[in-house]
Amino acid sequence: MPLDHTARGVFPIAPTPFDTDGRIDFASIERLTAFYREIGSDGMTVLGVLGEAPKLDGVEALDVARCFIRAAGALPVIVGVSAPGFAAMRGLALASMEAGAAGVMIAPPNTLRTDDQIASYYRGAADAIGPGVPWVIQDYPLNFSVVMSPGVIRRIVDENGSCVMLKHEDWPGLEKISALRAAEQVGTGRPISILCGNGGLFLDFETERGADGAMTGYAFPDMLVDLVSLQSDGRRDDAHDLFDAHLPLLRYEQQPGVGLAVRKYVMARRGLIASDTQRNPAARLTPTARAEIDYLLARLSTRDARAGC
Amino acid sequence: MPLDHTARGVFPIAPTPFDTDGRIDFASIERLTAFYREIGSDGMTVLGVLGEAPKLDGVEALDVARCFIRAAGALPVIVGVSAPGFAAMRGLALASMEAGAAGVMIAPPNTLRTDDQIASYYRGAADAIGPGVPWVIQDYPLNFSVVMSPGVIRRIVDENGSCVMLKHEDWPGLEKISALRAAEQVGTGRPISILCGNGGLFLDFETERGADGAMTGYAFPDMLVDLVSLQSDGRRDDAHDLFDAHLPLLRYEQQPGVGLAVRKYVMARRGLIASDTQRNPAARLTPTARAEIDYLLARLSTRDARAGC
Amino acid sequence: MPLDHTARGVFPIAPTPFDTDGRIDFASIERLTAFYREIGSDGMTVLGVLGEAPKLDGVEALDVARCFIRAAGALPVIVGVSAPGFAAMRGLALASMEAGAAGVMIAPPNTLRTDDQIASYYRGAADAIGPGVPWVIQDYPLNFSVVMSPGVIRRIVDENGSCVMLKHEDWPGLEKISALRAAEQVGTGRPISILCGNGGLFLDFETERGADGAMTGYAFPDMLVDLVSLQSDGRRDDAHDLFDAHLPLLRYEQQPGVGLAVRKYVMARRGLIASDTQRNPAARLTPTARAEIDYLLARLSTRDARAGC
Amino acid sequence: MPLDHTARGVFPIAPTPFDTDGRIDFASIERLTAFYREIGSDGMTVLGVLGEAPKLDGVEALDVARCFIRAAGALPVIVGVSAPGFAAMRGLALASMEAGAAGVMIAPPNTLRTDDQIASYYRGAADAIGPGVPWVIQDYPLNFSVVMSPGVIRRIVDENGSCVMLKHEDWPGLEKISALRAAEQVGTGRPISILCGNGGLFLDFETERGADGAMTGYAFPDMLVDLVSLQSDGRRDDAHDLFDAHLPLLRYEQQPGVGLAVRKYVMARRGLIASDTQRNPAARLTPTARAEIDYLLARLSTRDARAGC
Repeated sequence: MPLDHTARGVFPIAPTPFDTDGRIDFASIERLTAFYREIGSDGMTVLGVLGEAPKLDGVEALDVARCFIRAAGALPVIVGVSAPGFAAMRGLALASMEAGAAGVMIAPPNTLRTDDQIASYYRGAADAIGPGVPWVIQDYPLNFSVVMSPGVIRRIVDENGSCVMLKHEDWPGLEKISALRAAEQVGTGRPISILCGNGGLFLDFETERGADGAMTGYAFPDMLVDLVSLQSDGRRDDAHDLFDAHLPLLRYEQQPGVGLAVRKYVMARRGLIASDTQRNPAARLTPTARAEIDYLLARLSTRDARAGC
Repeated sequence: MPLDHTARGVFPIAPTPFDTDGRIDFASIERLTAFYREIGSDGMTVLGVLGEAPKLDGVEALDVARCFIRAAGALPVIVGVSAPGFAAMRGLALASMEAGAAGVMIAPPNTLRTDDQIASYYRGAADAIGPGVPWVIQDYPLNFSVVMSPGVIRRIVDENGSCVMLKHEDWPGLEKISALRAAEQVGTGRPISILCGNGGLFLDFETERGADGAMTGYAFPDMLVDLVSLQSDGRRDDAHDLFDAHLPLLRYEQQPGVGLAVRKYVMARRGLIASDTQRNPAARLTPTARAEIDYLLARLSTRDARAGC
Repeated sequence: MPLDHTARGVFPIAPTPFDTDGRIDFASIERLTAFYREIGSDGMTVLGVLGEAPKLDGVEALDVARCFIRAAGALPVIVGVSAPGFAAMRGLALASMEAGAAGVMIAPPNTLRTDDQIASYYRGAADAIGPGVPWVIQDYPLNFSVVMSPGVIRRIVDENGSCVMLKHEDWPGLEKISALRAAEQVGTGRPISILCGNGGLFLDFETERGADGAMTGYAFPDMLVDLVSLQSDGRRDDAHDLFDAHLPLLRYEQQPGVGLAVRKYVMARRGLIASDTQRNPAARLTPTARAEIDYLLARLSTRDARAGC
Repeated sequence: MPLDHTARGVFPIAPTPFDTDGRIDFASIERLTAFYREIGSDGMTVLGVLGEAPKLDGVEALDVARCFIRAAGALPVIVGVSAPGFAAMRGLALASMEAGAAGVMIAPPNTLRTDDQIASYYRGAADAIGPGVPWVIQDYPLNFSVVMSPGVIRRIVDENGSCVMLKHEDWPGLEKISALRAAEQVGTGRPISILCGNGGLFLDFETERGADGAMTGYAFPDMLVDLVSLQSDGRRDDAHDLFDAHLPLLRYEQQPGVGLAVRKYVMARRGLIASDTQRNPAARLTPTARAEIDYLLARLSTRDARAGC
C-alpha cells in the first residue's frame, strides 16, 4: 500500500543496529521490527539521520531497507533517501519501492536558504524519483539549518502531487502546525499527513494542534502509541500525565550529538537491539551519563512499568 | 562586595519590564527585585540577551542597571555589558561598578570560531574593562553560535585573573561541567564559579555534576532556589521530584524565539511584572499558546502551589 | 531632496575616521566628504557596517551623521540605521532625516531565514521609521547570513512604498540583478534603484546587468565614478580596462575581516583620512600585509596615476 | 611514490567529466589527465568537492579514481576520501592506495567547531585509514564552515605522523601561511607541504608567503604552473603580470555555487573535457553568463594566447 495523506498514528524512526564490530545486525532489525508491530505502530521509518544512513554505503543501505521491509509485513515502511546527488536518491528510492516500501523521505541539503531555493530543490528531487513514489518532506531546522515556513511547505505540496506527508520537527513548531492546518481550509489546500519528530519533545501539544501523530525515535515508542491513542480518545489529562512521566528521560535523549547514544543505550537495555554500538565517528556515553540514564529509568519505572527493564 | 569564584546558589536572570507603550517600567523592576530577595536568591543578573539589552540605548541600559542595583540592596548584581565595541563595553562596565554592581557578564560576538579567536577576544575585553572588574564568561552556543571547549574556557580563566565565573548554557553540557571540575584538580586550575542557564533544562543533573547553582530566567526562580537547596542537602530524589513537576512548563518556556514571551506572560500572571510587553521586533504568543501555558500552570499547581496564580 | 528610485551613479560608503586614540576625527570627516564631492560622487552612505557603526554609541552616531551631512552640502546622504530594536532605529532615522539625510539603510538581523521572516521584519522596520523616510534594503548575505531571493526583494518593495533602493551585495549576484530588472517589466513592478556593493568585485558586469551604479567603500571611489561613467557612455572595453587595473588591489581589500584595515590604510596613504585607526576589537595589518598593499599600489600607479600616492 | 611533505608545485583539482546524460566520461578523464601532464603539473587531486564526489556512488568513485591514476602514470594522484563515516573513508582510502594513489585528502564535517573537536576528528580519521596512508588536511572554511587556526593545524600535524600536507583555502589566509611557516622554525615543527586552493584568488602572494604551490581547479592550470615557476625563479613582477591578466576570469570562476559551471564551461571550450555537464542538483549558466565568460576569455587572449580557444 503506497503512503498517502491519510497516514496517522505512530511511525517509529528505527535506528540501524550494529554488532560490536560495526557490522549491520540483521537479527536485531528483525527483533526491533517485531517489537514495533507488537506495540501497535502504524508504520515505521528507516535510514533517517539517526539511522546513521550517511555511514552506510549504497549496498548496505538497500540491504537494511529490505530487511526492515520484509520484517514489517503489512506495516508501511518509509525509507530515507536523502543524498547529495539526485541519481543516488532516485536509485535508492526506486529500489526501495520495488522491495515493498510505502514511500520515501527527503531532507533538504544544508545549503538551501530562500523559499525559492527550497521549492526548487524539492521539485528537482520529486522529478528525479518520478511521480509514482509517495514522499515525505523532512523539516528539521536544528539539524539541517534549513528553515521552512508554512508557506513554502504549502508550495512544495501544491507543486508536487506525490508529496503526501510532512515530518515536522521544527522548534518552536506548534504554530507551524496550526498554520498548516488553517491553510488546508482555504482554496486549494490539498491535505497532507503531519507526523511529528524532534524526539517527541512537544508531542503532548502537537497532536492537539492538529498533527496526525508521531514519527520519532524515542526509545519508548510504546509510550508514543499510547499518547496518540489517548489524545484521539479525548483523554487529554491522561495523555499529559503519561507524557509528563516520560519527559525527564525524553528530554535527556533529545540532546544534540549524544542523543543517539542515549537512545541506543536504552533500547539495548530494553532488549530491542543487541548492542548500542554506533559507527564512527560517534558521540559516546560516559559512565556518569549511563548512571544518569539508569536513574531516570528507575524513576520512570515507578510510573510506567515498561521502564523497569 | 565584588563577585568572586565562591559565588553559588541562584542568580535569576531578570527580564527588563516594559509598560504597554514600551517604556521601561521601573516600578516593576523594584517589585521583581523584591521578589528575588524574598525567595532567597543569592544574586541576580540584568541586561542579558533575554533582558532585551540590545534594544535599550546606552542611557536606558545604565538606568535599568542602576534601578536593579539600588533595589537589590546587599544582593550582588551582575550586569551584562556585551557590546560590538570595547569602548561601549568599558563604559557600561565602569559605570555599573560605580553604581554598585558586583561584576559584569560578557558574551562572545557570533563571528568567533577558533580557540585562538575566542581567547583573544576575551583578553581584549578583559583589558578594556580593566583588572578591577570581576567578570563572567557567557557560554551559550545555541544563541551565539560560538562553541567553547572546556580547554578554551580554562585558557580564558588562566589568562585573565578577573574572570571568576562561567555562565554555562551549552547543550549538551553535562560533560563540560565534569571536565571543568576535573581540570581544577590538576596543575594551576584556579577554581571558578559555574552557574547554569539554558532555561534550567538540565539543572537537575548539572548541580550533581559540580555546578554551583543556576543563572537562568525561568519564571519560577523560587523553584530553582529550592532545587539547588535540596541538592546541596543531599536530597536527590526530592530535588528531581520538584524539578520533574516543573519540567513540562520549563520545556515550554525554553523554546527559541518565543521563550521570552512565555516567560514574561507567566511572570505577569504571577504579578511579578505589570505587563508582558516586549520591545519590537519580538515574537508574540497566540491565544492558543496562552491557553497551553494556562493549562500547564493549572497542572503544575496540583504539585506546586506557587503555580496557582 | 529625499532619496527616490531614480538615484544612480556612485554613493561611496564612508568609513568613520578615528584619531589614534579612537576618538571620532571630525576634521577627517570633512576632508573625506570634500573628496567625495570633488570626484563627482552622486551621494554617499555613512554608518554602515564598515563605518564601524555598531562601535559608536547613540550620541556619537548622530554626531557622525550630522557632520557628514553638513559637509556633503547638496550631495544626498544615506544613513545606516540598523539596530536590534525598532525604537533605536526609529530614533536615529528621524534624527538623521531632520539633520538633512536623504534616506536611511536597513540591514536584516542575522536570525532571519524564511521569506516570510524577512518580509515581516522589513514591514515592521518600515512601520517603525514611518512612511516619510525613504529607505534602502541592504542585501549582504556573506556578512549577515540572510539570503534574499529576487522574489522576496520584490515583495518588500511591493509591500513598502517608502523602499526605494537595493544595496546589492550578494555573491554570486549577477543573475539577481537580471531577475530584478526582468520583474520590473511585468505587472506591478515598481522600479527601484540598484546600487552594488561587495567591494565592487563584480561592478564591471553589474552595471551591464542593469544596476544603476555602486555603493561600496573601495579606497578608490574615483575609479568607481569613472567606471560607471564609462559604462553609461557605452565604452565597455575602456570600463573593463580600468576595472581590471584595479582588480588586484580591489580583490585584496575585499577580504573578510581584514578588509576594513586595508581600506583605511590606503585611504590614509591617499591623505583622505588622517589615521587608519579602527576601534577595538579590530583586525590589524601586519608589516608584510602593508608591504603587499604598497606593492599593489606601486603596480597600479603605472596604469592609474591616482595610485601614486 | 607516496606523498610526503616535500611535495611542491601545482596539483590541479580535477573535475569529474560527465557526458550529457550524466554518465562518467572516462575518455575525458584520460584527455584531461594527459593535459595536466603536458603542462608540467606536479601531481593532481581527484574526487574533491568540485569533483562532484558526493554525487558518485562508492563503485563509481573508485572507478573514477582508478582511471585518473592509470592515466596519470608517474604523476602522484591524491584522492579525496571525505565521508560521513570512517568505514567508507577507510574503504576508499585503502582501495585508492592499492590502485596506486600517492595519498588521500580529508575534509572536516561541517559540525566541528572547537579546536578539540577538529583535532579529535582528524585523529579518528587517521586511525581509520591507518598509518601507511599519507594524507592532506583540507582547510576550506567558506565551504565547510569549519575554521582551523594555525595552532590546531600544527596540533593535527604533530599528532598524526601520516599527515604531510595542508590544502590551504582559508579566506583571508595569507597570515595563516606565515604563521604556519614561522611555527616550523620552533621546537618540534615537523614541516608540511602547503598547497593553496580557493580558486587561486591569492596565489600571487601565497607563494611569497611560503606556500609550496597550488592545488586548485582554475580552468587554466597551465597559468598556475607558470606562476609558481616564475615565483620560484624570483621573477616577482612577471609572476604578478601573468596573474593579473587572469584575475578577471579567475575571480569570475571563484563564485560560490556557480563556480563549477564556469570552470567546466571554460574547460569544455578549451577542449579538455567533452561536455560541461554536471550531475543534478547543480547551478547552471545563463546565456548572459556564458557571454560574459566569452568576453573575459577574449580579453584574456590578448595577453595570454592560451585563452584564444
